[in-house]
Amino acid sequence: MVGDAKLLFPLDEQPAHGLVRGAAIRGPAIQSFLAVRKRSEELAEGLSAEDCMVQSMPDASPIKWHLAHTSWFFETFVLAQAGADFRTFDPAYRMLFNSYYNGVGEMHPRSLRGVLSRPGLDEVRRYRAHIDQAIVALLERPCPPEWLALIELGINHEEQHQELILTDLKHHLWCNPLHPVYRAARPVAAHPAMDMQFCEYEGGKTRIGHAGDSFGFDNEQPAHTVWLQPFALGKRLVNNRDYLAFIEDGGYRQPEYWLSEGWERRRSENWQAPLYWQAPESAGQGWRIFTLSGDQPLRLDEPVCHLSYYEADAYARWCGARLPTEAEWEHAAQQAGTAREVFGGFMESGDFHPVPPPVTGAQPSQMFGEVWQWTASAYLPYPGFRTAAGAVGEYNGKFMINQMVLRGASCATPREHFRASYRNFFPPATRWQFAGLRLARDVLG
Amino acid sequence: MVGDAKLLFPLDEQPAHGLVRGAAIRGPAIQSFLAVRKRSEELAEGLSAEDCMVQSMPDASPIKWHLAHTSWFFETFVLAQAGADFRTFDPAYRMLFNSYYNGVGEMHPRSLRGVLSRPGLDEVRRYRAHIDQAIVALLERPCPPEWLALIELGINHEEQHQELILTDLKHHLWCNPLHPVYRAARPVAAHPAMDMQFCEYEGGKTRIGHAGDSFGFDNEQPAHTVWLQPFALGKRLVNNRDYLAFIEDGGYRQPEYWLSEGWERRRSENWQAPLYWQAPESAGQGWRIFTLSGDQPLRLDEPVCHLSYYEADAYARWCGARLPTEAEWEHAAQQAGTAREVFGGFMESGDFHPVPPPVTGAQPSQMFGEVWQWTASAYLPYPGFRTAAGAVGEYNGKFMINQMVLRGASCATPREHFRASYRNFFPPATRWQFAGLRLARDVLG
Amino acid sequence: MVGDAKLLFPLDEQPAHGLVRGAAIRGPAIQSFLAVRKRSEELAEGLSAEDCMVQSMPDASPIKWHLAHTSWFFETFVLAQAGADFRTFDPAYRMLFNSYYNGVGEMHPRSLRGVLSRPGLDEVRRYRAHIDQAIVALLERPCPPEWLALIELGINHEEQHQELILTDLKHHLWCNPLHPVYRAARPVAAHPAMDMQFCEYEGGKTRIGHAGDSFGFDNEQPAHTVWLQPFALGKRLVNNRDYLAFIEDGGYRQPEYWLSEGWERRRSENWQAPLYWQAPESAGQGWRIFTLSGDQPLRLDEPVCHLSYYEADAYARWCGARLPTEAEWEHAAQQAGTAREVFGGFMESGDFHPVPPPVTGAQPSQMFGEVWQWTASAYLPYPGFRTAAGAVGEYNGKFMINQMVLRGASCATPREHFRASYRNFFPPATRWQFAGLRLARDVLG
Amino acid sequence: MVGDAKLLFPLDEQPAHGLVRGAAIRGPAIQSFLAVRKRSEELAEGLSAEDCMVQSMPDASPIKWHLAHTSWFFETFVLAQAGADFRTFDPAYRMLFNSYYNGVGEMHPRSLRGVLSRPGLDEVRRYRAHIDQAIVALLERPCPPEWLALIELGINHEEQHQELILTDLKHHLWCNPLHPVYRAARPVAAHPAMDMQFCEYEGGKTRIGHAGDSFGFDNEQPAHTVWLQPFALGKRLVNNRDYLAFIEDGGYRQPEYWLSEGWERRRSENWQAPLYWQAPESAGQGWRIFTLSGDQPLRLDEPVCHLSYYEADAYARWCGARLPTEAEWEHAAQQAGTAREVFGGFMESGDFHPVPPPVTGAQPSQMFGEVWQWTASAYLPYPGFRTAAGAVGEYNGKFMINQMVLRGASCATPREHFRASYRNFFPPATRWQFAGLRLARDVLG
Repeated sequence: MVGDAKLLFPLDEQPAHGLVRGAAIRGPAIQSFLAVRKRSEELAEGLSAEDCMVQSMPDASPIKWHLAHTSWFFETFVLAQAGADFRTFDPAYRMLFNSYYNGVGEMHPRSLRGVLSRPGLDEVRRYRAHIDQAIVALLERPCPPEWLALIELGINHEEQHQELILTDLKHHLWCNPLHPVYRAARPVAAHPAMDMQFCEYEGGKTRIGHAGDSFGFDNEQPAHTVWLQPFALGKRLVNNRDYLAFIEDGGYRQPEYWLSEGWERRRSENWQAPLYWQAPESAGQGWRIFTLSGDQPLRLDEPVCHLSYYEADAYARWCGARLPTEAEWEHAAQQAGTAREVFGGFMESGDFHPVPPPVTGAQPSQMFGEVWQWTASAYLPYPGFRTAAGAVGEYNGKFMINQMVLRGASCATPREHFRASYRNFFPPATRWQFAGLRLARDVLG
Repeated sequence: MVGDAKLLFPLDEQPAHGLVRGAAIRGPAIQSFLAVRKRSEELAEGLSAEDCMVQSMPDASPIKWHLAHTSWFFETFVLAQAGADFRTFDPAYRMLFNSYYNGVGEMHPRSLRGVLSRPGLDEVRRYRAHIDQAIVALLERPCPPEWLALIELGINHEEQHQELILTDLKHHLWCNPLHPVYRAARPVAAHPAMDMQFCEYEGGKTRIGHAGDSFGFDNEQPAHTVWLQPFALGKRLVNNRDYLAFIEDGGYRQPEYWLSEGWERRRSENWQAPLYWQAPESAGQGWRIFTLSGDQPLRLDEPVCHLSYYEADAYARWCGARLPTEAEWEHAAQQAGTAREVFGGFMESGDFHPVPPPVTGAQPSQMFGEVWQWTASAYLPYPGFRTAAGAVGEYNGKFMINQMVLRGASCATPREHFRASYRNFFPPATRWQFAGLRLARDVLG
Repeated sequence: MVGDAKLLFPLDEQPAHGLVRGAAIRGPAIQSFLAVRKRSEELAEGLSAEDCMVQSMPDASPIKWHLAHTSWFFETFVLAQAGADFRTFDPAYRMLFNSYYNGVGEMHPRSLRGVLSRPGLDEVRRYRAHIDQAIVALLERPCPPEWLALIELGINHEEQHQELILTDLKHHLWCNPLHPVYRAARPVAAHPAMDMQFCEYEGGKTRIGHAGDSFGFDNEQPAHTVWLQPFALGKRLVNNRDYLAFIEDGGYRQPEYWLSEGWERRRSENWQAPLYWQAPESAGQGWRIFTLSGDQPLRLDEPVCHLSYYEADAYARWCGARLPTEAEWEHAAQQAGTAREVFGGFMESGDFHPVPPPVTGAQPSQMFGEVWQWTASAYLPYPGFRTAAGAVGEYNGKFMINQMVLRGASCATPREHFRASYRNFFPPATRWQFAGLRLARDVLG
Repeated sequence: MVGDAKLLFPLDEQPAHGLVRGAAIRGPAIQSFLAVRKRSEELAEGLSAEDCMVQSMPDASPIKWHLAHTSWFFETFVLAQAGADFRTFDPAYRMLFNSYYNGVGEMHPRSLRGVLSRPGLDEVRRYRAHIDQAIVALLERPCPPEWLALIELGINHEEQHQELILTDLKHHLWCNPLHPVYRAARPVAAHPAMDMQFCEYEGGKTRIGHAGDSFGFDNEQPAHTVWLQPFALGKRLVNNRDYLAFIEDGGYRQPEYWLSEGWERRRSENWQAPLYWQAPESAGQGWRIFTLSGDQPLRLDEPVCHLSYYEADAYARWCGARLPTEAEWEHAAQQAGTAREVFGGFMESGDFHPVPPPVTGAQPSQMFGEVWQWTASAYLPYPGFRTAAGAVGEYNGKFMINQMVLRGASCATPREHFRASYRNFFPPATRWQFAGLRLARDVLG
């Protein structure tokens, strides 16, 4: 619950040494705030104002909209409530950049975000500067803990939108037949392929969910006890080679591996491979894949990505395994601790695409930072879940239906924005996210 | 799991005394089979051939189709595999009455079941007799356990379709502006209204799911351990009086109580009250409700019914409570045991509509036999869940997405067709089933 | 125009010899009325009550609905206005069987006509008898001309629904995979194929539209002058052999022959041939076609049928011709007069399917009575067109948009229900009507 | 017909004095070409690159797309065929900026034109310069007449897109809740309101369609004889005052004035007034209207605009009149000749909005240059219509279905781009064009 979350920035003493948040280190509040704000703008570097206003489908938003909406969030939930000396940049923005908060009032229709040529990108940048200045001014004075908590929420909110900037941009560039390059491809170290191996876990009583001093979203809370049956978890992510075997075995032609709704979706949208895959144009040629570095040959050793839940689930069934539950996944992630192989490259690597795993040791590799991993768990409230009072309570809770939980973090997730208890969620047909899978299976006790 | 289920009818010895199935007593196999088959036909009594062929929406099916499809089930999964001496009634039926089994082959489109004027109702009755005769002939000889298991599955399958016959018929009659009566209304004993009270449960480790000698569907298995937080469960179902207060408080006009998708659905379909409710036409008049006995005044003390998950969930949020999880519900049902108040009227009561509860004692009343109760649990596989091999494995498993579990049993459920572990499931927007709710809340430990 | 139409039954003197209506002879009013009413019921002979209540798509209606609605028409526009002594059969029918007359009030939704199992077919027959009796009683007394005019309109209305009974039934039986037979096929005389020849017409000033003593719909009126360029009209209808050449030449694969909207429709509905055609299952086999006599081999010499306007137009373009305008067609039909070859079999032939043409002489053959012929004319009001006052004015006029005119009459049209000025009309994507084409081309003056 | 059209630029002699085209004067070919090209870019002045890439609905296109596509037209139909020395600017553009010419090959989906952030606006301007240079180079040498004809077609094509630039931009700005201003409003001279009066025409034989030396589209040809009944035509356009009376009389609440499809559309899209009208927010306030100069008070004397055919037709029926046919309109326009009152302001006025009429004399006022006028005629081929060979033949002909003809020209039409025979066409539900109406009525002969 937002209101109760332990604060990143305690009231009296803003630490010079930073605070632990997830597994990462944060600096003092102002620096943290400004760093996140700056990174959003850096993501837009090299893009034109035109690039920043495309909306390629209702699920995706223009980059300019992301830049404005994250500012709107600070304005609406912090500045507008923090006192009389805040001057609104433009009163029309309250409606224009409201995403889905009924408690705030009217909102511009989601599917029409791409028509907002006004305000222009430059104007939105001025809006951002205006908000930055006001938040910094607020933080320079003694600041009540509830505002600090909301600022921290705003920072985490902006990090989520940084990932969306990348996934939405990728979809937009894909819709352009020119398949433009966003960032040049970086060389990737070749690793020998590892056979699929599993780690076993005993099960029994364990505790999941977020607790403690660091930031967590309301939907990760409260921490609570669950009971697990013994299970095993794949030591590495399923990769393109694995998945290609499924395709070549007729996985997209046989309903027996698929959930009924998944098969219907596959048929109606004519899925033949993951999103962004391009079939060989003629014998002898190989598969290609569209990335944020343009069209590339498909690397067989890298984690498969841009799967819907339906595809991930069908693949797992085809190979006699299943998807892990979110509790299993979190339990394993707690065990994995901070071993080096556990972490991938995150957004900061600059790859913007998953890379092959390192040679792994005892722990599952790439739990975080390459692809989100579909779990077999529906996105539902934890026992004792409460939303915050007011409009900010609409943040997560009202979406708890018809969505599946993904765990981990992807190559588009900011490095500071992950933890074992983190719950990402999307409808099962979603394919434009960096989502892949890790296998699980039962262990007979 | 179907193939492993303990048999209703052991191979060598068909008992004269019957076998416990759920809380009910069954006779020997042939009698059980014939009794179920007869009841389906009794449900169609008083209806014309025209009545029996209406399909009022794609989700519902004509009664004639239910009568044929339940026979097809025995033919396809038992008779067609049981030996050379079975003569097919009509080879076209294999496709015509296949509901959704890809493993069996092609199927007539679901939304076009209402165009099948041929075969006529009389022909379908001959088909039923043909199948009945063949199954009885099979049962009169020594019968391998896997066939017995499939016959038992067929009986349970037919019981499920008996409930659907009633819910589909109700929707069909509602679509006819004449609002015809199916069965005359029976007098209902008036009970003084009871305030809402809760039973508390300690939580901790418990076991849910189906195990033991009796029949259970694959989706209830295997039994397994779960961990519950302390909780409380409403002693009675939410009734029309309760729900009317929600309506009158603006529950259908304020998004804050609703899941986001639920609110969208409410808007797009203009829900203002539960399905089948008719608002007062003028001041001074009361609400009315359409039932299988035609239009009736709304009885305030009877359980509210024909709610979607979205409405049940919004109501619970509005009154500061929540829906129970399926594990909580099952745990409570195990405790409730066989106390008299626990059971409602089921289909056999002839009410075809929920009735007000008896004065209750220590246990939650009407856990079974009045309305299905939406739970907060998504319909997903239990740990260790396996489907049967072959097409019959499509029975339940492939629907485990985007559906919510309902527990209990309704006034349209056959009395023998219930148990504490039973998992019913529907998409959250479903309203034409006899579905209501029971409140739950957290108990701080 | 309805109100002004010359009466079939003059007030004072009801003729023993009948009146010319179109090219046909009618008996006195009561006989005419009863004959038409009886024929509707004869069309339902051999069909079960179940057969009579199927609605296979929103555009089509159940036979039972046609039987009731045609009675409703007499009740609503004649009996309800003709005096106090008429007793309504059931007040609910006013809404239940209203097709589209806003001026009459509410109507049961068109797409839900198939849910009306009540009233049953027997009840609808009693309704028909009730109406028959009342109309006969009315006609037995002196009857003001405006009522006579409305009764005549009702007779013509019922004849239109007789054709719809057949086209709707055909679609319904086609949707049933059993492809039931309505009437046994009759032997067809084989005629040697005739090459396509054209009749030439000089053009200039001519007069089209309905005038004179006989009945005509408002949309055929008033008669008026038009100017035609010289043109030529095909002496016979395009037949299956002709059309197959178009298919085999890739007509359904090349957009260049198609209107843009037609091509989109072809793609989205995957048209590969006319409706009801079944492609050869293997080499060596021939095309088959579904008819009201079940599946039959495709007869190459019979007129092609069940085309949309888009297909008819594409075919004409492919062979370097065009569709005639309705004025050209009517001008030619006026010239053709009563030559024997001009007329086909109509509904009364009992073929319920178009037959090959006779050896033709000077006039275009089969102008009437085999297939409706798409024209290049949009369905729009004639100069001076007026609708009748009141709800009956909604009969034709409000549909004058986005529809194309068809001329002639089909094998499902009652023999008395045609004339050179008759305007049938359907949206250009319509395929379930008995619609084919006749070619036209320009003649350079 | 394109190929046969009389040339604007005869081969040997390019006139210094210009050529009559419509009622306007054109300079020599190069100047004409460059003037049109320049005007397109002037329309984009004051707009940002972001403004130029919005697509607010599938029917509308981004301005950048219009700028590129008009260049593509010259490239594809002239330069690519005119010789070996033409260097393609970017081969990808052949597909990217193909609107709908199947004969040219694949095309980028219409509904996704707004995702093309690349090429950017600057790049498209370079593309335009590249094409301009190549066409000028072509025109500087002796040029075969068929190329000249195609260049002239390209000029007219670009003029059509100039109007679309304005209508699409208007819709886009309207979708932005900020309602930005494109060009400042100009003062409008107030004229006293004139009562509706009619000019009468005798009818009889007349000739319509394009003929002669000047340019005309294929769909206006060939000129041909038609026969008209006597009729009368409104001396002025229907204005906002007239139309408001229809609204206030319940015109949008009563189906009796509407075509059946029109009423359905009105209901499903909840039309309550013309597009861009804003109802008074409270009593005492007046209606407002969105224009290319932002929100403005509704001026009662200006022609009503942004009507669908359905609304224009309903209005005419409500006031006991009708829409004119296109032949009636053209006949009247021929009579009106060059009287001053006949012409409005066109695009060149800079109003970008219709203005009240001058005091009129004998002729109908504002036949051209204020609003397009819906006619009662479907858009169909004239007798003897032929399309050009090749892909350019797809220009007009393949759209001749389900559209209605509009006559005249609007305040967004370039002044040189009109003539009495000009046929504009849109589907009847279209509202974003500058379309209004002029009444007609029958005159009893």
